[in-house]
Amino acid sequence: MVEIARGLEGITVAETRLGFIDGQKGILRYCGYPIEELAKHSTFEETAWLLWNNALPTKAQLQRFDQQLKKNRALPKLMLEILPKVVKQRKDVAAMDVLRTGISALGTLYDSDISQEALRKKAIGIFAKAPTIIATLHRIREGKKPVPPDPKLGHAANFLYMLTGKKPDPEAAKIIDTCLVLHAEHGFNASTFAARVTCSTLSDLHAAITSAIGTLKGPLHGGANIAAQKQIREIGKPERAEKYVLAKLAKKERIMGFGHRVYKVKDPRAIILERYAGQLAKKSKEPEIFAIQQKVEEVVVREKGEKGIHANVDFYSGTTYHYLGIPAYLYPTIFALARIAGWIAHCFEQYADNRLIRPRGHYVGPVKQNYVPLGRR
Amino acid sequence: MVEIARGLEGITVAETRLGFIDGQKGILRYCGYPIEELAKHSTFEETAWLLWNNALPTKAQLQRFDQQLKKNRALPKLMLEILPKVVKQRKDVAAMDVLRTGISALGTLYDSDISQEALRKKAIGIFAKAPTIIATLHRIREGKKPVPPDPKLGHAANFLYMLTGKKPDPEAAKIIDTCLVLHAEHGFNASTFAARVTCSTLSDLHAAITSAIGTLKGPLHGGANIAAQKQIREIGKPERAEKYVLAKLAKKERIMGFGHRVYKVKDPRAIILERYAGQLAKKSKEPEIFAIQQKVEEVVVREKGEKGIHANVDFYSGTTYHYLGIPAYLYPTIFALARIAGWIAHCFEQYADNRLIRPRGHYVGPVKQNYVPLGRR
Repeated sequence: MVEIARGLEGITVAETRLGFIDGQKGILRYCGYPIEELAKHSTFEETAWLLWNNALPTKAQLQRFDQQLKKNRALPKLMLEILPKVVKQRKDVAAMDVLRTGISALGTLYDSDISQEALRKKAIGIFAKAPTIIATLHRIREGKKPVPPDPKLGHAANFLYMLTGKKPDPEAAKIIDTCLVLHAEHGFNASTFAARVTCSTLSDLHAAITSAIGTLKGPLHGGANIAAQKQIREIGKPERAEKYVLAKLAKKERIMGFGHRVYKVKDPRAIILERYAGQLAKKSKEPEIFAIQQKVEEVVVREKGEKGIHANVDFYSGTTYHYLGIPAYLYPTIFALARIAGWIAHCFEQYADNRLIRPRGHYVGPVKQNYVPLGRR
Repeated sequence: MVEIARGLEGITVAETRLGFIDGQKGILRYCGYPIEELAKHSTFEETAWLLWNNALPTKAQLQRFDQQLKKNRALPKLMLEILPKVVKQRKDVAAMDVLRTGISALGTLYDSDISQEALRKKAIGIFAKAPTIIATLHRIREGKKPVPPDPKLGHAANFLYMLTGKKPDPEAAKIIDTCLVLHAEHGFNASTFAARVTCSTLSDLHAAITSAIGTLKGPLHGGANIAAQKQIREIGKPERAEKYVLAKLAKKERIMGFGHRVYKVKDPRAIILERYAGQLAKKSKEPEIFAIQQKVEEVVVREKGEKGIHANVDFYSGTTYHYLGIPAYLYPTIFALARIAGWIAHCFEQYADNRLIRPRGHYVGPVKQNYVPLGRR
């Protein structure tokens, strides 16, 4: 009997110096630094540098990195020409499709060099331009002029600025920055793993990030934050939450934003995001969205907590984005903008100690068939 | 001690009804049909239908499939507008980057539906249009007008026609068709696996095929046929082959086109391709390319055959393409045009019985670090 590791559950595929996850205790650390400390003190740029170098940067290193990123934010002319045509062709184009195609197209400008130097250069280009692709798409969709990046703003604040055309207030800038920190890295999740599979043939970095974006798009991964928000809207009022949840559970249907392959307790990122969502709810005209969520979480944990079903990162992230004025169709792309930091770090690791990733399948079809000519079928 | 399955070697990840490979005996079958029989009797369209349906088509089914493919060959206007700009921007753009970006861009036209019906429709579009993307790129690179597809020609012959503008002779058409059959499917290779990882989040088919193309691009996978040809050119003459091979082996360097994760005897596809390359060599002005290869194979097998190092599919495929007049920069894309059949079949399998593919990493970095403020570093 062949043992089949479906979904590779429980299979360890490589060593890593990036994410440490203890799913039983609800611990997440990047290169040893607890996510709570990074959320409080670090910026997203610093977190990316940490992941790419396995160490926190000095002031000079961070400044240099920051300058390189700022210099690389603008999109090539060709992309600015193509994006309006893509949107014209289909106004409700999936933002993840545009990001995936944009990063892939960016790759056509480079050769396939995977030397350390080339990788760093490409990484900065991808990381710096991804928010610009998304913001440009959004502006075009809204029938507005794209907003050029502002070198006075940090990565996250500049993204909000390019989306809205308005300088974000410090609270919003801090919260979106922290959201990116929280989503930056999470071990061998499906999108990160897809990037590593692509690298493992010694294909290039743009190819790897393209694979990762396409993989993150799925509703079981980066698309879950939209699905979770949709459910909250379906419920509509806090007093309907309990009935809704119980009915779903009775039908063995999924409550979106709950449960995780690795975490069996509350996702440490959800704890931080819940705090932000709650903070923003107080000033919002729609505080009931957060109130519904609190009730949903209470009921799910009461019913399923013992089975290890708790809120995950996707449950409160969409609410936070909504309160920041970001439209739902962009939520998965924000996940992508953050996770690009981790994807690139994992690609660096994979290239540095590569082994072609090639599992096997167990063949269960007919063993041997004889070809019957078409005329006799 | 955590057991690490590097490269997932020896790990079985799913059941499959597609490729059966016996690497010790040199057996490859698609859905039970030996590759030798399919190479002799089947067309590439029929082989794709077989893989997508786990059965050979009836005459009526094959006709209908053929008509659907022919109707879907033309590219959307936007792609015809963009391709010249991409080439203008960088004349030596990697053909695989263009194919990857093209399929990704095609995805922006569709919604993310993964119902059976939507999958079939998307599959036909991807499969039918991929050759047109490559041929159009090639014509533009050559400064020539793209050649519209000819509905009187089969998939492979039409590809050659769109590349060259000339109707291929029956021998060339049969050989390229068989090359596509031979490369159509090969179990859980890295590109196919990348497609399945992408599907496993329930992302869409265009995303999955985009991941696969990016993964195939690497020199350890679909790029190996170029590398093998480069080595043959480096050798230059048959009488230099032995010395070249022995020197490489002494330095423990790789002879391209030899060795395989699964096959420990001669790749059954290489046996068929060798026959075609030899047949074409006789009529070619460059018969020495094939002669060099024969000598290289003789020496490698003499030196390393006992260790399971034998010619693989990439060794004779490039020579065959070269004799057919196809430029080397396109070789990996021909691999892709063929493997799209298998990728799509694997995506169908993955969607039909999905489990999120998410392995684990073994964290080996510092366990816990305290965040030091930037000013004190």
